[in-house]
Amino acid sequence: MKLFIIGIGLIGGSMAKDLRKLFADIEILGIDSNPDHIKQAIKLGLIDAEGTMDKLIEADRVIVSVPVKIAIQLVSQILDKINQNTLVWDVGSTKNILCKALESHPRRDQFLAAHPIAGTEFSGPNAAIEGLFEGKPQILCETEKTRPDLLAWAEETFSKMGMYLRMMKPKSHDKHMAYVSHLSHVSSFMLGKTVLEIENDEQNIFDLAGSGFESTVRLAKSSPDMWTPIFEQNKKYLTESLNAYIENLNQFKQAIETDDFKSLYEQMKNTNQLTQILNGIKIK
Amino acid sequence: MKLFIIGIGLIGGSMAKDLRKLFADIEILGIDSNPDHIKQAIKLGLIDAEGTMDKLIEADRVIVSVPVKIAIQLVSQILDKINQNTLVWDVGSTKNILCKALESHPRRDQFLAAHPIAGTEFSGPNAAIEGLFEGKPQILCETEKTRPDLLAWAEETFSKMGMYLRMMKPKSHDKHMAYVSHLSHVSSFMLGKTVLEIENDEQNIFDLAGSGFESTVRLAKSSPDMWTPIFEQNKKYLTESLNAYIENLNQFKQAIETDDFKSLYEQMKNTNQLTQILNGIKIK
Repeated sequence: MKLFIIGIGLIGGSMAKDLRKLFADIEILGIDSNPDHIKQAIKLGLIDAEGTMDKLIEADRVIVSVPVKIAIQLVSQILDKINQNTLVWDVGSTKNILCKALESHPRRDQFLAAHPIAGTEFSGPNAAIEGLFEGKPQILCETEKTRPDLLAWAEETFSKMGMYLRMMKPKSHDKHMAYVSHLSHVSSFMLGKTVLEIENDEQNIFDLAGSGFESTVRLAKSSPDMWTPIFEQNKKYLTESLNAYIENLNQFKQAIETDDFKSLYEQMKNTNQLTQILNGIKIK
Repeated sequence: MKLFIIGIGLIGGSMAKDLRKLFADIEILGIDSNPDHIKQAIKLGLIDAEGTMDKLIEADRVIVSVPVKIAIQLVSQILDKINQNTLVWDVGSTKNILCKALESHPRRDQFLAAHPIAGTEFSGPNAAIEGLFEGKPQILCETEKTRPDLLAWAEETFSKMGMYLRMMKPKSHDKHMAYVSHLSHVSSFMLGKTVLEIENDEQNIFDLAGSGFESTVRLAKSSPDMWTPIFEQNKKYLTESLNAYIENLNQFKQAIETDDFKSLYEQMKNTNQLTQILNGIKIK
């Protein structure tokens, strides 16, 4: 089996590790706009060699793991070049614009819109982790538009990688990702920005970080190249959730200012119920 | 050595574990407003038995690990009851109001204002962890007001527990804690509240939490009993930092709404420098 991975970073590289374990005969070729990533990926054994776009006709499978803005053009170009049994899937954090862009592509049925809910704040081939997807959800969109034999192969493979599958409509995916994930990223980035601005002493940031800051700001280490286009493509739902967040912060601040500590207590007590909801993650 | 721990939860219990390892002859007595905590702490071996306030005259050392609002009255009452060689220290997250309240106590020199920067989002005796303080900073305030022999014992003991010591003035402590730690807690609590309000489907919260939400919202599991009085006592610096945070969120939202993606990118790129500052934590 010949696999092309376009964009060989955290997600593409981690997929390479798992797929190499699953398929003994696999040959993995990497394409990346950053030549250093290709060198690192070869050195790490993620890919066997560099691939080129004009060799895509030889591909059995293609993973597109590039920033979501680039994916829109790129998936379409890839579909133009593949053979009739190739399956192409993406791993991007937004789905609506991509699915719309590919809607009338003659080879739409050789594409699967996928989003594995896994990752870290790090990026690049060095960030790739074996088993990253174990126990994690794989969101699939518009599976009815993918050719049944190719879809069946993908579902089986993702399951073998330890993922559980969830079907979502592209718009619904984007909405819920904005609410749960993208809002968290903005919250964390702005917390980091604020603390850098108001806390002039880096030693204090370092010494006091253990008391909650370090974990809350983890996402602020994430790549702007990845996140700027996600925020752009998910503008509507993200601003909606940001409005709700800012409103809650303003109300909380007002409660502090007016000594309404009963309200602070109630709000925090009520939010504690997240413990039960999130505990499900460990149980599952 | 006879040690009284008043408030036998995460911090008091973790201190008990470490001190029991350091002092072979230690006898630990616990006092807690929650009778279940006493039972659990005995079962876990954190304390040897329940203590009472009228036995405090026998104490060599007293740790006060209760919510900061209760500490103000309580430390004063404890100082009234101890013998002349007893050392009392607290572990609270605010320092200015407490230090002011004890300023003119005749036994002020038998008290040490301390704040170990360590903890988790959990509470109660079951949350106690051996080695919790290893490699963590211990903030000490107004050490010049503590009797030198008692201070020397405390500094040596905290160092043996693996902590490194930092001296801060009470006001300065509260300001920097507001900026780095308390703001993180409000940010996380309000993120949790917002997501509970806008995301009606708990299964979605569960499935999508892995993409950043889970870690960013970790602090929203914290105890409102502990945090309400901290926010109350640190009102001024906390609202100051909340204003800066809300302003940054509003600007970021505006940049999204006006398609100013260059600004989003720059802001995130600039915030990435936190990676270097926080990496110090691991190096140290």
